[in-house]
Amino acid sequence: MTLHWSPRSPFVRKVMVAAHELGLEDRITRVRTVVRMGMPNQDLLPDNPLSKIPTLVLPDGSAIFDSLTICEYLDHMAGGGLFPPAGPERWAALTRHALGTGFLDLLILWRNERDKPAAQQTEEWLKSFATKTEATLARLEKDAPALAALPFDIGHISIGCALSYLDFRFPDLGWREGRPALTAWHDTFRARPSAQATEAVDD
Amino acid sequence: MTLHWSPRSPFVRKVMVAAHELGLEDRITRVRTVVRMGMPNQDLLPDNPLSKIPTLVLPDGSAIFDSLTICEYLDHMAGGGLFPPAGPERWAALTRHALGTGFLDLLILWRNERDKPAAQQTEEWLKSFATKTEATLARLEKDAPALAALPFDIGHISIGCALSYLDFRFPDLGWREGRPALTAWHDTFRARPSAQATEAVDD
Repeated sequence: MTLHWSPRSPFVRKVMVAAHELGLEDRITRVRTVVRMGMPNQDLLPDNPLSKIPTLVLPDGSAIFDSLTICEYLDHMAGGGLFPPAGPERWAALTRHALGTGFLDLLILWRNERDKPAAQQTEEWLKSFATKTEATLARLEKDAPALAALPFDIGHISIGCALSYLDFRFPDLGWREGRPALTAWHDTFRARPSAQATEAVDD
Repeated sequence: MTLHWSPRSPFVRKVMVAAHELGLEDRITRVRTVVRMGMPNQDLLPDNPLSKIPTLVLPDGSAIFDSLTICEYLDHMAGGGLFPPAGPERWAALTRHALGTGFLDLLILWRNERDKPAAQQTEEWLKSFATKTEATLARLEKDAPALAALPFDIGHISIGCALSYLDFRFPDLGWREGRPALTAWHDTFRARPSAQATEAVDD
C-alpha cells in the first residue's frame, strides 16, 4: 500500500497512529505529497481529485480516502479494535471522531485566515474560530474522564491528534490552562508509542 | 429524535435523503438551526461545540454528528441498505462518500471566498477551487457508469447532493456541459422521491 503522506498533516497522522496501533506501519510505503489550500498537487489529482491527503493507493491501483475511510480499512485488515461494532459505543466513538476532525478543519481554516495580510482577514471569522475552539475545549474537558475510561478507539486518535495540532500550530493559545482533566488525558495519548512515532516536526 | 436542520444545508440534506430512503423521515423532528461561518449558534453549542449541522439529538439527550455518523446510525436502525458491509464495496462507497462531501466542503469555501469584497479575496484560492472542481467533475464523469450500475448507497447520496448544490449555488458553472454520463446519472438521482422531498429552496 502506498500512502500520500506528509509529516505535518494532522489528518495523515491519524492514519499513521492507527497503523501503529494496529501493527500495520511496515505495510505502508509513504510518499511525501505536498498539498496547500491554494495549490492543487497535479500528481495527486488522479488518485484524489480534491488534492487532499491522506490518500491510500491499494495494491490493485485503486485509491481510497478520506482519513476515516483509510482508518476503517486498516482496522478491518488487522481484525478490528479501533472501531466499535454497530451500537451506542460506535455512534459515540464516531461522534468523538467527528468532533476531533471537525476541530482540525476549523483550526486549519483559522491558521489560513490568521496568516493572511491583515487587510484580507475577516474579523468575524477569527472571532468565530476562537468561540468554537473555546466551546470545543470546554466540552473535551468535561468528556476527558470518559475518554480516559474508555478503550482507545478512533475517537481518541482524532481528539489526540487535534490537541497535538494545537501544540504544534497554536502554542500561544495555552489550551491546557484550566483544563487539568484534558491535559492529563492528552499526556497519556502523547506517551503512546503510536503517538511518539508520528509526532509532527518542522523541517 | 430531533435534528438540527436547515432547508439549504447540503450536509443536512444527505441525512434527510437517507431518512427518506430508509423510511424513517417520520421519526425525525426537525428544528430549524441557522449556522454561519462567522457566527456560532449559541443554542447549538451544547449539542455540538463546533456549531455545525446536521446534529441529531437522540431520545436519551445525547447528540451525534457529523452527517456520516448520523446516516450510519439511521441505516443501522432501519436494518441496513445504504452502507455495504466491510470489504471492497464498503471502502469504495465510503471513498465516493468522501469525494462528494469533500467536494461540498470545497464548494462552501469557494462560495464564502467568492462572496467577499474583491480586495479581501485570495486569488490563488479561487483558482485552486476551480481546478479541483474541474478535476472532481472529470472524475465523476468517468465514474458515472459505475454509479448507475451499483446499488444506491451512501456514496450516491453524497455525490447527488453535491451536484444538486452546484445547481443551487453555482448555476453559472454549467457543470453538465461535456458530461453526458454524469448528467444522466444525476437525472436519476433527482427523480428519486427522497431527492424530490428534500430539494433545497431559497425562502
